[in-house]
Amino acid sequence: MTTATANRQIRLRERPDGRIDERTFETVEGAMPEPGPRQALVRNLYLSIDPTNRAWIGEEPTYLPPVGIGEVMRAVGLGRVVASNSEQYPEGALVTGLVGWQDYTLAGGEGIPLTVLPELDLPIECMLGALGVTGVTAWFGIEEIGRPQEGETVVVSAAAGAVGSVAGQLAKLRGARVVGVAGGAEKCAWLVDDLGFDAAVDRHDPRWRELLGQACPDGVDVDFENVGGEIMGAVFAMLNLNARVALCGLISEYNDDPQPGPNLRRVLMNRVLIKGFIVLDWFDRFPEAIARLGALVADGKVKDRHTVVAGLERAPEACNMLFDGANVGKLIVKI
Amino acid sequence: MTTATANRQIRLRERPDGRIDERTFETVEGAMPEPGPRQALVRNLYLSIDPTNRAWIGEEPTYLPPVGIGEVMRAVGLGRVVASNSEQYPEGALVTGLVGWQDYTLAGGEGIPLTVLPELDLPIECMLGALGVTGVTAWFGIEEIGRPQEGETVVVSAAAGAVGSVAGQLAKLRGARVVGVAGGAEKCAWLVDDLGFDAAVDRHDPRWRELLGQACPDGVDVDFENVGGEIMGAVFAMLNLNARVALCGLISEYNDDPQPGPNLRRVLMNRVLIKGFIVLDWFDRFPEAIARLGALVADGKVKDRHTVVAGLERAPEACNMLFDGANVGKLIVKI
Repeated sequence: MTTATANRQIRLRERPDGRIDERTFETVEGAMPEPGPRQALVRNLYLSIDPTNRAWIGEEPTYLPPVGIGEVMRAVGLGRVVASNSEQYPEGALVTGLVGWQDYTLAGGEGIPLTVLPELDLPIECMLGALGVTGVTAWFGIEEIGRPQEGETVVVSAAAGAVGSVAGQLAKLRGARVVGVAGGAEKCAWLVDDLGFDAAVDRHDPRWRELLGQACPDGVDVDFENVGGEIMGAVFAMLNLNARVALCGLISEYNDDPQPGPNLRRVLMNRVLIKGFIVLDWFDRFPEAIARLGALVADGKVKDRHTVVAGLERAPEACNMLFDGANVGKLIVKI
Repeated sequence: MTTATANRQIRLRERPDGRIDERTFETVEGAMPEPGPRQALVRNLYLSIDPTNRAWIGEEPTYLPPVGIGEVMRAVGLGRVVASNSEQYPEGALVTGLVGWQDYTLAGGEGIPLTVLPELDLPIECMLGALGVTGVTAWFGIEEIGRPQEGETVVVSAAAGAVGSVAGQLAKLRGARVVGVAGGAEKCAWLVDDLGFDAAVDRHDPRWRELLGQACPDGVDVDFENVGGEIMGAVFAMLNLNARVALCGLISEYNDDPQPGPNLRRVLMNRVLIKGFIVLDWFDRFPEAIARLGALVADGKVKDRHTVVAGLERAPEACNMLFDGANVGKLIVKI
């Protein structure tokens, strides 16, 4: 099935100090992997580009060990089985998991454990978007931590991103008033006009703090927090009695050394719950979330938008795009 | 029954900027209150001195509105009914509630709603200590939020205080390794030698940070947080996967304007839960907690120590003692 003789791999060369740059990675033409017993060869098609990628190449451990120097960059992706010695991974199957920044991945055995996906009547990019790790992250953050009730106010930061855009739509479906914070007028218009957010605040507007206050006249009951920094601080200052903070990401902080966080006095006085979470905590329940999200996307109740960057070699550049807010919806590299 | 003709009241004169001083309160000889229909006259015996008293006289609302200028200082206390027009408050009954900094309080009707206490075979000071609001705070913080498991590490800050000393003992009873942070060698010795804490760290020791690290070789699973500031920051830096922070108080921060808090990156990566709480949230369950604590105190399994300051007029001074760490266990004013 495969005619290629080499496997391009993007490997970590040195840990970035701040933004990813040309020294961070190197591209190597690796030998074409051969599937051993109980293994399958996967042709990778799409890579999911996520803020967590940047965190994985820092010095500090995250919820996974840092990617080692010289190792293929860790990343979730989507591929098809092109040769197989495994009943688990039949030829032609669509698979997902930590395929890495490379053309081909060996699945199973001593390779990477991948998950076989059902063939749905949706664009396969959705399997990395609303039905992928980011959509599932939004699902559990809203349904298990934020749990917004009818009429409550939910603020979603990085609202035009892959997680935020789904989280806001799920909060709307629960009857909440949803306010998004995003970078730029175009994203804000998309949130309100296409996704049905009640309001969107452009964080590039010098008056963003005032606008955010105006958009939340009754305070904030749920903070779906993707950003950290001063936007999180402004939201924390409005948290209501018994508010919940679904602490999903801190993208504004990943390129820098840790800065002080918000004062916790209001968290105390208003009995706020803050819960850090990583979607892998609900790994066993992924099928449930994917099924629910799949039905919502198929019904048009959750819209899934993708920003696609073409070419494996552009994965490092795509990673920086996230931090520049250059994507709308899910950022994907098409290999 | 009562022969006094006047009721001393300590009223708020001006909000303190920082510590309470001689301008903060004024003492007024009020008229002796007369119980109206369905009211009772209560002779106050003891006042509970708590960090929250300081928060109640700041500008910012807490979980209760700020005490108004000219109003009697709000405080929990213990008293006996000395005259009654109310079946609810029979003469001689021991009562507790927000009696305020005064000799006498009118209970019921348009007065203050007080709670009649059972007569237990324990010193009545215990009703403001382990069986009072502070003990009940420790109970719910440990049993409902921290929930330490056998072998987990619990750090309690302000551990020699009224809440901390009970919280640490309750964590020990659940089988946890308990580390207290307290001010001074005497308090630390009390925690380890008398209360059975596994370790205690003297925050006045210049090496406190290093000592705290040594006392928690396996990190921290539960932070029973009473203090805030840099001690909280040091504990946050050791929080383990799935750690819980029972955010009970921030005493180091009440005299100052809000300062930045800890960075939340570790909270995210380690999926930490932070829950601000106020004991009043479990008001309906006070009887259950008091009964459980009463049995533990009676059996000697929870030790309840009191620091008693004599004289209503010394209540403001006693309040500052808390911030100086001058008390061991529950700080009480005997009127």
